[in-house]
Amino acid sequence: MQPVSLHALAGIPLIEPGDDLATIIGAALRDNGLALADGDILVLAQKIVSKAEGRYVNLDDVTPSARARELAAELGKDPRHVEVVLGESDELVKVGQHVIVAAHKLGLVMANAGIDESNISHGEGGGRVLLLPRDPDGSAAALKARLDAAHGVSVGVVINDSFGRPWRNGVVGVAIGAAGIPSLVDRVGAVDLFGRELKVTEIATADELASAASLLMGQAAEAMPAALIRGFRSTAPERPAAALIRDRKRDMFR
Amino acid sequence: MQPVSLHALAGIPLIEPGDDLATIIGAALRDNGLALADGDILVLAQKIVSKAEGRYVNLDDVTPSARARELAAELGKDPRHVEVVLGESDELVKVGQHVIVAAHKLGLVMANAGIDESNISHGEGGGRVLLLPRDPDGSAAALKARLDAAHGVSVGVVINDSFGRPWRNGVVGVAIGAAGIPSLVDRVGAVDLFGRELKVTEIATADELASAASLLMGQAAEAMPAALIRGFRSTAPERPAAALIRDRKRDMFR
Repeated sequence: MQPVSLHALAGIPLIEPGDDLATIIGAALRDNGLALADGDILVLAQKIVSKAEGRYVNLDDVTPSARARELAAELGKDPRHVEVVLGESDELVKVGQHVIVAAHKLGLVMANAGIDESNISHGEGGGRVLLLPRDPDGSAAALKARLDAAHGVSVGVVINDSFGRPWRNGVVGVAIGAAGIPSLVDRVGAVDLFGRELKVTEIATADELASAASLLMGQAAEAMPAALIRGFRSTAPERPAAALIRDRKRDMFR
Repeated sequence: MQPVSLHALAGIPLIEPGDDLATIIGAALRDNGLALADGDILVLAQKIVSKAEGRYVNLDDVTPSARARELAAELGKDPRHVEVVLGESDELVKVGQHVIVAAHKLGLVMANAGIDESNISHGEGGGRVLLLPRDPDGSAAALKARLDAAHGVSVGVVINDSFGRPWRNGVVGVAIGAAGIPSLVDRVGAVDLFGRELKVTEIATADELASAASLLMGQAAEAMPAALIRGFRSTAPERPAAALIRDRKRDMFR
């Protein structure tokens, strides 16, 4: 069986709004001695996708509501930042320990609705924060279309982010957007070695790909915001990362 | 930068109590054309470690308590299975939807305290279930010592399992035991590209390794209960998988 290989893409420049990620990734692949092949999966950090899409909010332009000021005082946060978190959220799942765990309008339950303050240069007076891409599955699909056309192949694209988890320390890479891969693999009806029906029916394949890539992408200090996964094969149908979001009605934890 | 490679170990036989996993893994490596090298990380499914350790409970030997009978009726489960789950647990975190989310005595919060019914052959009358290894970090350390001595190298060992998560569909590979790797990488004090302190301070590296390996290990039908990860480098200090368990007092979610 062929191994799966994970390649970090070194040398990607700091991304600015309007930058063309497909071209930048193409150049990075070339610089790292890699030519895209069918079935390759590119994993991109949420941060560079959001930056390319110009998803900045200047905190100087934000007027915090009474609710945001109240939460900010409770949590020791900037009320403008809290206001942005509230504006991006449908529901606050848990508040405490300097964090707001919120259900983002996209459905993702995550710390501070995924709104990052790190690695953002400070503007005049106030600084800015970076929102999630408006439609991460759409961003992944658009990037896949560009890469497929430019390189004459069919690839997968995953946009990953780092999520904390209940009950466990540390963050792991998670897929917030995907195209061309089976994000969730359904095993309903599969039987185990003794012929009983498997209890575990779905595998979060895109999250496992996102975590695998995170091993190389590291964190900000290394500035390695993209990786290539080669050799992963699945016969499961393609599904976007939205399939990983548990329906609120089936969720025991909110 | 060298890629990281993931190799499935095909051909591992069904494991029985008392089997010597170090020898069996050694044979599988040889059969798959792999020679262990320094820094290699072996990922083993919890199931084969538990089986080798003979962690079976015969359900015929289990007398369910009133509490187990009550929960079993509520959840549509075998009261003897529920009794075993209760016996392995310190705390029930959530009950519903045919599942008991419990804090295992080891600290791991997981569905049914990690007690698996699938892939277990049926004994006379009642069948049996498989408990987690008694000390997964200890099992990993013992296996590492055997492999290091037999192959003249220093390797890492991860014991993984599949966990569901709040808010997200599908299971992912998670580390329940580890040796010779930095399970949790502490980034306190690390600064981002613009010199601000990073908010995200810890990375659950062992869980990311466990997920990466799960991509290859698949599920029962493929019977691929071990994988090799080659080329992953970290300068962080070694820490066992127990470091991934969030202290109850710091846990917002129980």
